[in-house]
Amino acid sequence: MDRRLFLKGTGVAAAGTALAAPAIAQGRTEWKMVTTWPKNFPGLGTGAQRCADRITKLTDGRVNVKLFAAGELVPPFEVHDAVQNGTAEMYHGSEYYFQGKHPAFAFFTVVPMGFTVPEMDAWINFGGGQELWDELAGQFNIKPFACGNTGVQMGGWFRDEINSVDDLQGLKFRSPGLGGEVLRALGVNVINLPGGEIFPALQSGAIDATEWVGPWNDLAFGFYRIAKNYYYPGFHEPGPQLCGGVNLDAFNALSDSDKAAVEAACRAENNLMYSEFVAKNGQALTTLVNQHGVLIKEFPQDVFAAFADASEDVVNEVGNHDDLAKRVLESYRNARREFGGWTKISMQSYLNERGRTLTL
Amino acid sequence: MDRRLFLKGTGVAAAGTALAAPAIAQGRTEWKMVTTWPKNFPGLGTGAQRCADRITKLTDGRVNVKLFAAGELVPPFEVHDAVQNGTAEMYHGSEYYFQGKHPAFAFFTVVPMGFTVPEMDAWINFGGGQELWDELAGQFNIKPFACGNTGVQMGGWFRDEINSVDDLQGLKFRSPGLGGEVLRALGVNVINLPGGEIFPALQSGAIDATEWVGPWNDLAFGFYRIAKNYYYPGFHEPGPQLCGGVNLDAFNALSDSDKAAVEAACRAENNLMYSEFVAKNGQALTTLVNQHGVLIKEFPQDVFAAFADASEDVVNEVGNHDDLAKRVLESYRNARREFGGWTKISMQSYLNERGRTLTL
Repeated sequence: MDRRLFLKGTGVAAAGTALAAPAIAQGRTEWKMVTTWPKNFPGLGTGAQRCADRITKLTDGRVNVKLFAAGELVPPFEVHDAVQNGTAEMYHGSEYYFQGKHPAFAFFTVVPMGFTVPEMDAWINFGGGQELWDELAGQFNIKPFACGNTGVQMGGWFRDEINSVDDLQGLKFRSPGLGGEVLRALGVNVINLPGGEIFPALQSGAIDATEWVGPWNDLAFGFYRIAKNYYYPGFHEPGPQLCGGVNLDAFNALSDSDKAAVEAACRAENNLMYSEFVAKNGQALTTLVNQHGVLIKEFPQDVFAAFADASEDVVNEVGNHDDLAKRVLESYRNARREFGGWTKISMQSYLNERGRTLTL
Repeated sequence: MDRRLFLKGTGVAAAGTALAAPAIAQGRTEWKMVTTWPKNFPGLGTGAQRCADRITKLTDGRVNVKLFAAGELVPPFEVHDAVQNGTAEMYHGSEYYFQGKHPAFAFFTVVPMGFTVPEMDAWINFGGGQELWDELAGQFNIKPFACGNTGVQMGGWFRDEINSVDDLQGLKFRSPGLGGEVLRALGVNVINLPGGEIFPALQSGAIDATEWVGPWNDLAFGFYRIAKNYYYPGFHEPGPQLCGGVNLDAFNALSDSDKAAVEAACRAENNLMYSEFVAKNGQALTTLVNQHGVLIKEFPQDVFAAFADASEDVVNEVGNHDDLAKRVLESYRNARREFGGWTKISMQSYLNERGRTLTL
């Protein structure tokens, strides 16, 4: 084949070299995506895999992303270090796992009594959130992208009913993160356990209660066999956002088109994962109630009010860490007030009126 | 430059020809995206432009998308015909504009008392919605993608208060689509006007009330100068989804990577546009109340109940059209029940409890 003819058909000649040259200069790159999830863990692990595959597909293999589940390359909570130091090019996980590095990371997953998913997306994209996140993650040589969400989590599985704030005293409750701190402030005996150890602990009585995610993931773990009381709503994680974090040097080495591919793959997954949780939580909730006799209960109003009050104290405390934490807290609070005002007369009011007037 | 050396650096040699060949064979394609929106109309028009630009960028110019605003190439409501017959390769618009072609198109934008945005996304992606949409749009040689959403719309601007169902009798109310049909069934004098004619009609008294979108878009139109009563929530459009519709022949001619680019660009915009509406509605609502003295009012409960009852009748009627419409209606109703059950104990309960316990 004649080279000039060949080039004519490639788009290189037509576009000039401006567009096509960077990708050509770079050729193929192999990226390792490390995750904090077990292989193909439903929702989180499968979503990370979808994102990895989409980057590979969008770049036609120029950025070929191979996913490593938790522990395959590095332990789950070391994915941030691994991407910071270039051992891997990308991670998929939750920013609040890295609160030890900087407490403001919590805001970019979720904080107690915080944003719903639409509010979080609004903050990240149009409320100054992404700029603050870039500044924070940039300190660790990482470019962060929103990459999925589980939506509102359930309050948890309880052996016994919770009828008052007194019932929280000394309760052995598995609850991680800032939500755990809130519960500790209310007298709960907070216990932290990884996912795989929860069921046996519940069975043996080592814990009285546990939160996990929501109906879809919780059904698979079988908590309903031990603890029949399933409380809503969770105050602690109203819309935990997942993160696709990319090593900044690796990101900056990409062509504009391949940078756009990484961003678009994360944005697409941000939309897709949440919709999967909504759909599958709906289906699993029906199964839990109709097939397993689970009792769906709302927290008593005074109990939830105690959660809410204590949450504000715990979250505000993060702002004392440093100037960046203070700015993140202020931005979060302003956005929650402004977007929350709109949520109240739109989503909240509509759902209440639909629920009141129709039997779905 | 030596051709073999050149090729060595391109990724073509490294990948074999399997991956790179299709794109090379196709070269550059110019796509026309026709839209139903004025040029850069905030939210809808700017979102369509963002989607067009993202396809161009993701494909590195192989699919170079040029946007034509309403009327630039074809009139706004002829974009569907234009893509069906290949005059343009893609449109951005609302499927319910094309209800005249098939009434089931309404379900893929929004129906009265229907899905919120998360529920719509769940239905499309994991509840059988996309498959039904592909079947419907495929009859018109179109591949449809969800591509944005405005979120819950407001109930409308009213010169006078609405205190009872009687106040609806003979009210000259601008309200299009199925929402208009519902209002007509309740005795409203429904009037249909394009956006640009609403303000003068309100000013002259030709209409007493109008719905449009929400605080962000409505503020720009200045309806608050004439009608101070701004009612919520809208029963008629709880989460209108926009569509990126692609001519099937044009889509099938793309490489797998470029197909993925079109899909990812639409998915990304689906996430981004909604978040922009949440953010900017929040900001505009504050402006309307604090600077323009707008009175934000909730519809009386019996009025909303009348909207809801009449809505179910109007929507169920669509199912009588043909077998496909019947299957779409059934799928919609099952999904609304199942996902709605989850929404009730997650998003709805959380928002109510947050609103009750915190002053944001």
